[in-house]
Parts: sequence; C-alpha cells; structure tokens
Amino acid sequence: MRMVDIIEKKRNGESLSREEIEFFVNGYSRDEIPDYQAAALAMAIYFRDMDDRERADLTLAMANSGDTLDLSEIEGIKVDKHSTGGVGDTTTLVLGPLVAALGVPVAKMSGRGLGHTGGTIDKLESIAGFNVELSSADFIDQVNRHRLAVIGQSGDLTPADKKLYALRDVTATVDSIPLIASSIMSKKIAAGADAIVLDVKCGEGAFMKSVDDARHLAEAMVRIGNQVGRRTMAVISDMSQPLGRAIGNALEVEEAIQTLRGEGPADLHELCLTLGAQMVVLAGRAADLDEARALLEAAMADGRAIETFRRFVANQGGDASLIDHPERLPRARRQVTVEVPRDGVVARLDAALLGTAVMKLGAGRETKTSTIDLATGMVLNAKVGDRVRAGDPLLVLHANQDDLDEVLELVGRAVVISEHAEPPVLIHELVSA
Amino acid sequence: MRMVDIIEKKRNGESLSREEIEFFVNGYSRDEIPDYQAAALAMAIYFRDMDDRERADLTLAMANSGDTLDLSEIEGIKVDKHSTGGVGDTTTLVLGPLVAALGVPVAKMSGRGLGHTGGTIDKLESIAGFNVELSSADFIDQVNRHRLAVIGQSGDLTPADKKLYALRDVTATVDSIPLIASSIMSKKIAAGADAIVLDVKCGEGAFMKSVDDARHLAEAMVRIGNQVGRRTMAVISDMSQPLGRAIGNALEVEEAIQTLRGEGPADLHELCLTLGAQMVVLAGRAADLDEARALLEAAMADGRAIETFRRFVANQGGDASLIDHPERLPRARRQVTVEVPRDGVVARLDAALLGTAVMKLGAGRETKTSTIDLATGMVLNAKVGDRVRAGDPLLVLHANQDDLDEVLELVGRAVVISEHAEPPVLIHELVSA
Repeated sequence: MRMVDIIEKKRNGESLSREEIEFFVNGYSRDEIPDYQAAALAMAIYFRDMDDRERADLTLAMANSGDTLDLSEIEGIKVDKHSTGGVGDTTTLVLGPLVAALGVPVAKMSGRGLGHTGGTIDKLESIAGFNVELSSADFIDQVNRHRLAVIGQSGDLTPADKKLYALRDVTATVDSIPLIASSIMSKKIAAGADAIVLDVKCGEGAFMKSVDDARHLAEAMVRIGNQVGRRTMAVISDMSQPLGRAIGNALEVEEAIQTLRGEGPADLHELCLTLGAQMVVLAGRAADLDEARALLEAAMADGRAIETFRRFVANQGGDASLIDHPERLPRARRQVTVEVPRDGVVARLDAALLGTAVMKLGAGRETKTSTIDLATGMVLNAKVGDRVRAGDPLLVLHANQDDLDEVLELVGRAVVISEHAEPPVLIHELVSA
Repeated sequence: MRMVDIIEKKRNGESLSREEIEFFVNGYSRDEIPDYQAAALAMAIYFRDMDDRERADLTLAMANSGDTLDLSEIEGIKVDKHSTGGVGDTTTLVLGPLVAALGVPVAKMSGRGLGHTGGTIDKLESIAGFNVELSSADFIDQVNRHRLAVIGQSGDLTPADKKLYALRDVTATVDSIPLIASSIMSKKIAAGADAIVLDVKCGEGAFMKSVDDARHLAEAMVRIGNQVGRRTMAVISDMSQPLGRAIGNALEVEEAIQTLRGEGPADLHELCLTLGAQMVVLAGRAADLDEARALLEAAMADGRAIETFRRFVANQGGDASLIDHPERLPRARRQVTVEVPRDGVVARLDAALLGTAVMKLGAGRETKTSTIDLATGMVLNAKVGDRVRAGDPLLVLHANQDDLDEVLELVGRAVVISEHAEPPVLIHELVSA
C-alpha cells in the first residue's frame, strides 16, 4: 500500500477502505508517513468529504493509535460529556456532581486547554488543595465508591489525532466536518466513554457560527458514536452571548455552586438540565428525558447535588468549606464596574470579544506556556434582552492588572444597547440517532 | 503574511495576489515554508484552479527563484522548443540544425532526464567526442557564430519548481493544469527563451491521454507565455504510437540524420516541419507558417540542414564523420527481429508499453542513478495502418542483454494486428494566442 495512492483515491472522490485509513493513521502516528502527505490527504478530505463508514473507521483508528483508558472496572454505563467550546461554559463543573447524585458514574479525564478561560482542570484547581493527579487505581476506586472523580490528562491518548490536529491548524484544513467529528469522538472513545453527550455550540462565540453548521457537526458525531457502539446524543445550544454570568476560573466555580443549589443563572440552569437529562437516559437511569429532568431537578432541590459536589471536593483533597464560603476562593485585587452607557435593551454581548477580554485579564492561555490567573474574569449583571438604564452596573471586571485599556476597549465593542431585542434561543435542537 | 492564510484563501476559491504567490515560491525555495504547507496549497490548487494572472505570476516567481540564463548577448530572437514527452521523440535533434540553417539562433540547455530513453544530452553523447559542457561564454559565442549550441543543465535553475515537482509526485497533485503549465513555462523562461514552441503530446504514450486534456494544457501554456512577454505557440500531436521508427539514443541520432536529409519517416518529418515553421515564424524569419515551411523544406533539400548539423557536431568536439557513416555510432551486440504474428493491418503499437520495453533494454533511466546504454533500443518496420503479412519483420530489437523475455512480453502486449485500421491523426491542432 502506498500513501500517494490513498491520497489520489480520496482526491478522486472515492471512499477509502478501513485498511487504507488504518494504514494512514498508524503510519502517521509512527512518523512513517510524512506531514506533507497527511496535509495533502486532509485537504482532499476537505474537498471530497468522507462517508459515514469512513468517518467511523477514522475515529476508531485514531482512538486506537495510542493509550486508551480502561474503565471496565467501574460498574454501570460511563457517560462522558463534551462541549465544542464556548465562553463562560460552566456546565462540566455542574453536570459531574448533578448526574453523579443520581448514581450515574462519572469518570472524567479533563484538559487544561487553550482559550478564554482555563479547562475544567484549571477551574477545579482554584479550590485550595484539590488534587487532579490520582493514580489510575485511585481514580477508578473513587468513582466506584462516590460516583465521581476528575483527573488531568495523562498517558499518550490519540497521538494520531494530536499530530493531525496540529497539522490541520497550519494547513487550513480545520473546517472539515469529518475531520472535526472524528477528532472529538476519537478522544472520547480513548478516554473510555460507553456513551457520549455532546454540547455543540453555535453563534459568534463558537467555532460553528450557524445552526446549520452546528447541526451538521452534531449529526456527524451522533452517527459516528452510534456506528462504533457508543450511544450518543447531542444538544445544539446558543453561544452568541456567554453562558451564565461568570467568565473566569474561580468565578465559574462559584457559579457552579449556585447552580447545583438550583440558584444559578436561568440559561446555565436550563442547559445543565437538558444535557444532564441526556446523560441520565444514556446511563439507563431514566426511561425518557422528562423523567430524567425531574430526577435532576429533585436532586438540586433536596441538596443531593451540592452534597455530591462537597464529597467530591473533599475526596480529591480540596477545601470543601469553600462551598459555603465562596469568598475563600481566589479573589482578584480589583473589581471594576462597567456601567450601562444608555437606556435601552441589551441587544448584543459578543461572546468572542468578551472571551478575548477575559483572556487579556489573564484567565486563559494565549499559548501553551502561558500562566493562568485563576482569580480574574468578569461577571455579567445583564444578558441579552434585559432592559437596562444608563449608569446601571452592566458587568464587573475582576482584575489583577492596572492597565485595563485594552480590556475596556474589547468590552465596549462587545456590548450593544438598542431599543428592542429578544433574548436568543438557548437550545436550538436535540439530536439523537 | 502567513502561509496558512494563503492556503485558506485558495481553498476558498479566491485568487491569490502576486505578492502572495511570490511569498510562497520564495519562502518554499528557501526552505522557510515547510513541505506540508506547500502540499496543502498544491491540493487546494488542484481543486480550485488558478486564473490566468495567477498562473503567469506563479510561472515568473518560479523562473526567478534561482539562476537564470542570460542570452541577451546572442543577437536575434531566441526560440526554445519543449515537448511534453513521448516515446521515440527525435524532434529536438532535428529541429536545432533545421531552424539554425535558416539563421534562427538556437541556444539550447537540455537535460538527461528519466524515462524510456535518455534526454537530448544523452542522445548527443552517443556521438564520440561530443562535449556538452561548454562555458557560458563559449556557449554564447558558438551560437553567435554558428547559430546552434547545446549544453547540459548547469546552475540552480528554478529550484522552487524542482522542489514543488518532487513534492507533487508524492502527494497526488501532479495532474493539475496550472501546476503543470507553470512548471514547464518557468523552466523555459529561466533558460532564457524569448519565444517558445510547445509540442503537447496526447495518446497512450503521453501524460495527456485525450486531445481535450492536451488542448487545455496547450492553451494554458500559450496564455502564460504571451502574458509574460514570451510569444508562444503549440502543436498538439499524436503519441498513441511511437514517433518515427527509432527508439533509443544512438538509433535516434541516426534517424535524425536521415530526417535532416529529408529522408526521415513521414510522421517525424511532418512534425518537425510543423514545429519548425512555428519556430521560424516566432523568430521573425518568415511572415507566416506556409512561408516558413517552404524555407525549411528547401534547407532540407539543398543540404543546408545536414551541413548545419555537421558543423554543430564538429564545433562541440564530436566525430562528424558519423554523419556519413552512421554504422560508427554505438551498436548493440544483438539485433533480434520480431516477426509479424499474422496477416492483417497494424492496429496498435502501444507507445507506453514499447517505451517501457526500450527502458528494459537499458536505453532509459528507471531512477536518477541508473546508467544508460546508448546503443540499445528498437526500430519499427511498420506503423499503425500498415498492411503486413505473417513472418514479415515487425521490428528489430537492439540489445546487449541475453534475457529478452520481459522485453518480448511487453512488445507482444503492445502490438495488435487487426483486419482494418487507419493511421492515427498526427497533428491534432495548432494553438496560438
């Protein structure tokens, strides 16, 4: 088998066989196939697409290209959740304890990642003492005993995907549904998921700008999941404005605590119940989404959700007293209120620009080697559709730096006050097989 | 400027600016742009094509990426001729002396090349003593005094094209009209041509299998040439069967001598007059193709053509006595006649298969480091459309090896004898601006 023939076949619009896909993925991850051939193939896939069978084969080949997490010693159906990334997305911090409170096992491997704020691991590290470096045995034991544990990424998971992802970034082959879908799904499968819930964001703050694009990606991933024996569902949710009110690491932990108590912002609360219901159904703990949702609401209302979070924090060495005393979380030196410029209705809170503003406050990493400030970020006092008056507090910046010119300029561009505006639709669609 | 943005722009179907094309070509030839980005761009060009202005800019950027031959000290319009490659193509050996006999300056830099037989340089080296390594000054002086000189490739001409060509070969991006056309034209321009005549082959023995494909390529190159100030014409000629009767290095020199005397095979004779007429017109030595053709026929008939060849060989140190005594050219140890298998008409002489057979006789290079046998090859006694009888000599193999099984098997597959067959059209079209 020769790589040049595989490239030519795809270039000509033909379907690649499983053997050809494995030849590429294995050869590429072993450095036997050079980057230039992988780049040519990626561009050919960009133009010619892949059919469902090819996508499933590519996903499995990448999942099997390195280490995989064996969660078979954990009883029950392990459901993982993935978000395609947004601004102020606190759902993972809420969903873990929330569904674990119903007995669903949550064994989550999470990353630090680049972006506006840190990853889930960074956010959890704003809790004093919290340890994300459990041994594999401790991790599994923790989930079996307490239904919930989170660890940082270790081992060499999906090396083929890592190489291909880095290559796509510099060869203009990122925007390809088969490549995006197989990349995401391969990581979930290598991380041991039996079933997968996907939160596909759309809007200005998301990779997918339109509902149509988000639907294509969601459907592609759901089809892959179900083809490779991992039941998969997806939610298409709004990311035109930030989710919830808090953007930042410690600030989002505090917001997660409120949400687990049933006192979170309406949009975050609703999205957590929607995603959580899918997780509970896939875990076999409820017959349908309505029943699952009712169970989750009850767990919030009677305190089981927040108690699961408390136990989870304590089990991993964190200071659980923070849950009742969130003022003990890292705090930024300055709280700077940005006022509403004029009477009207909030018509836009551009998620991408606000995300960049928060990164400029140090809450996220611009490069892999950036250090992160867990205390900084912003809290919104109003959301799109809210009527506001000039001089009201619009949002509060939490900053450790003196010069806020650039941040304030970004915020100024992100916010539009108008005469009329409706709140955006939060949940566009549910996608299942 | 970032290469990834240039790739994305082309991927999206936009036209690249001259600055963007130069950024790529210069960066790539200096190894500042990696192969994987060049491969992604090549595949994007394969799918999205380039407009005429982009093709011209790419051609000039590649021509200027390395050394260029300065022929300005040679008086007159320097016309170069290029063939897209075929089997038994003796035209260059004929055309140089033929048009030089009319006073057209021919300053030819030529390659050794891979393929069925050697390049023009190899063929000339079958003439004892012939020296292809002239200094630049001697080369120019020779042309000014005698209208004709041929040297081997020296210097670092079109390094960007060399790199890109090698990359395309392993990334399934060879079959792209803008990339093929700019590659060929950049080499001709770097070699100092003022005007260019192209012989675009089509048929089984050529890269372009159909007349339509050949026309697309020919038109693309003619448009590039005229856009960059090099008047360019093209001929689309048949390569379904070998051109002429001889295939091999010394064998083709002998055939060239016959043709310069006006005694060559009909198809080779006709194609040389057609291409030669275009060269003479572009050099400004005749008002139109008919006048040019008459001048060329006269030069063959009255001996000026063969005398120009004789002087050319002597000037470059070769044994000119070979011209009257071709038996002094290198001769293979064995002449093996292949007989016509049955009565009928020759319906096929597959040029690709016969070319491979000749390469297996050692007449061509399979890899860059292969050594070449100047004496071997084959001579056809019949061409497509000829009526033949069983037992007649069909062709003669000139071999220095004992085992001819593989060669005979290839020849057997290449030849079809049928009830009826017409000779193929030799000249499909003339293309000019």
